[in-house]
Amino acid sequence: MRTYLECMPCFIRQALEAMRENISDEAKTLEALKKVLLSAAKFDTRKSPPEMGRIIHRIVRRESGCDDPYANIKKHSIAEALKVADRVRDAVKKSKDPFREAIKYSIAGNILDYAIISKRDEYRLWDSLRAVESATLLHDSAVEKLRERLNKAESVLFIADNAGETVFDRILIENLPGTYKIFYAVKGAPVINDATASDAEASGIGGEIMVVANGSDAPGTILKLCSREFKKLFRECDVIIAKGQANFETLNEAGRETFFLLQIKCPVIGKNYGYRVGDWIVTTAQSGKKEKKNSGIK
Amino acid sequence: MRTYLECMPCFIRQALEAMRENISDEAKTLEALKKVLLSAAKFDTRKSPPEMGRIIHRIVRRESGCDDPYANIKKHSIAEALKVADRVRDAVKKSKDPFREAIKYSIAGNILDYAIISKRDEYRLWDSLRAVESATLLHDSAVEKLRERLNKAESVLFIADNAGETVFDRILIENLPGTYKIFYAVKGAPVINDATASDAEASGIGGEIMVVANGSDAPGTILKLCSREFKKLFRECDVIIAKGQANFETLNEAGRETFFLLQIKCPVIGKNYGYRVGDWIVTTAQSGKKEKKNSGIK
Repeated sequence: MRTYLECMPCFIRQALEAMRENISDEAKTLEALKKVLLSAAKFDTRKSPPEMGRIIHRIVRRESGCDDPYANIKKHSIAEALKVADRVRDAVKKSKDPFREAIKYSIAGNILDYAIISKRDEYRLWDSLRAVESATLLHDSAVEKLRERLNKAESVLFIADNAGETVFDRILIENLPGTYKIFYAVKGAPVINDATASDAEASGIGGEIMVVANGSDAPGTILKLCSREFKKLFRECDVIIAKGQANFETLNEAGRETFFLLQIKCPVIGKNYGYRVGDWIVTTAQSGKKEKKNSGIK
Repeated sequence: MRTYLECMPCFIRQALEAMRENISDEAKTLEALKKVLLSAAKFDTRKSPPEMGRIIHRIVRRESGCDDPYANIKKHSIAEALKVADRVRDAVKKSKDPFREAIKYSIAGNILDYAIISKRDEYRLWDSLRAVESATLLHDSAVEKLRERLNKAESVLFIADNAGETVFDRILIENLPGTYKIFYAVKGAPVINDATASDAEASGIGGEIMVVANGSDAPGTILKLCSREFKKLFRECDVIIAKGQANFETLNEAGRETFFLLQIKCPVIGKNYGYRVGDWIVTTAQSGKKEKKNSGIK
């Protein structure tokens, strides 16, 4: 997906919010924000929003002198998610179809997205978890297709999104049908509140599940920026599950079947793929709608 | 009031929305947006948000080749306001205190602010008018002070804000106590959806009321950019009434008693003066709270 002009004010806001978390000096924040504005003025909008995010969050990290500006937010999200993990695990176990129920909780966790809003807000997670009962999954048939693929698989690549959401991914992994080797892919370096290896570990992921860093500090999965090891997994694993918007934006035209599990949280993505903000989606690249060409958002 | 860093993403959004209304070519819009980003990167944040707005909307006008990018929005707002004018006039006439009631309707009209949101939305006006019944005026005692001043006045300067709102200002002017010469000040040239002389005329203002252009194309009232004639009126008129946020931002420390009538629509202004978004306010420069120093918005 290309970057839309409507992404620009959003990136400026996002950068400022990240700076506010880590730079207390106003003059220094202004200088850093000016660098972001200059960088945005030079951005090639044919590239995807995660590519722009990568550039902008590199500026934030450099200017704040902080390698992981969202470290506290990530810790907080994981702690909040762990508090409710046992209850979610129970609810999944007691449901008629634990696999399907665990998918919904994993999508519920996708609300922990600080690209959209930087404020800490437990209510957003609770509301999202409560919505599991009533939420309709768009392209629901993809759940059965995924079940079928998993039952035949020997290897599964699970591409993570945000820290905290990882706790619910762990519960989903416990409820996946079939027997295979699982690789859980995280970011190679911190960007926004995306999960890194230490966030995955803090969320209880490890042991039989192999945590793999993708070698990149971009949001989403920009294959050309990922490590050779990750690209090999992406080519060779039998089933790929990818969480969240940025993975959808960067992989939905990557040319192989990928099961995307996400909430639509951004009107630009919604508009361009015919979804609405708030939609819960399970889809494959093939069933996912194509980006509309030349569709300015008004 | 100085420009806060939180104003930056808002100005970028505002500029983009204005371009979307007037530039259909995507590449041209991108080029124009890049000019806005570069300009924002150079802005002196010690200056007020209306000064930044002036620079940015000059770029929008130049790049769109359109002298009045909000012309259609303004016509629409005035037409919508005129549709309900008779009903508002009746409600004011039947109320216990028509002067006070007309102040509330004039503040209700202040919702027609396309600096905050560019989408046309009749419901916002209707909701705001309906809120007159329940709305509490902060610093309510200023209404009695204004009544007192008007009863002794020989000249009144009424500083307008948005087109459409002007229709309700007209009704307020009909219900002001006392007898005096009234000057109704509008912008010297179009900026955002602020009222110009032709908008005032289309709203039924004229005749006994002298419409005066302030000589500037900045939002609010930046005195140093206004005409000598306007500055003379500002110095010499017995009573000054100023509508809306931008006039509050630019005149609340101008050193003379001014009655501000406005809705708080922006969290930055709210936070810096101790108000909340949605507050309806009648205040004088003296009773208005001072801008907090060094108060970064988090």
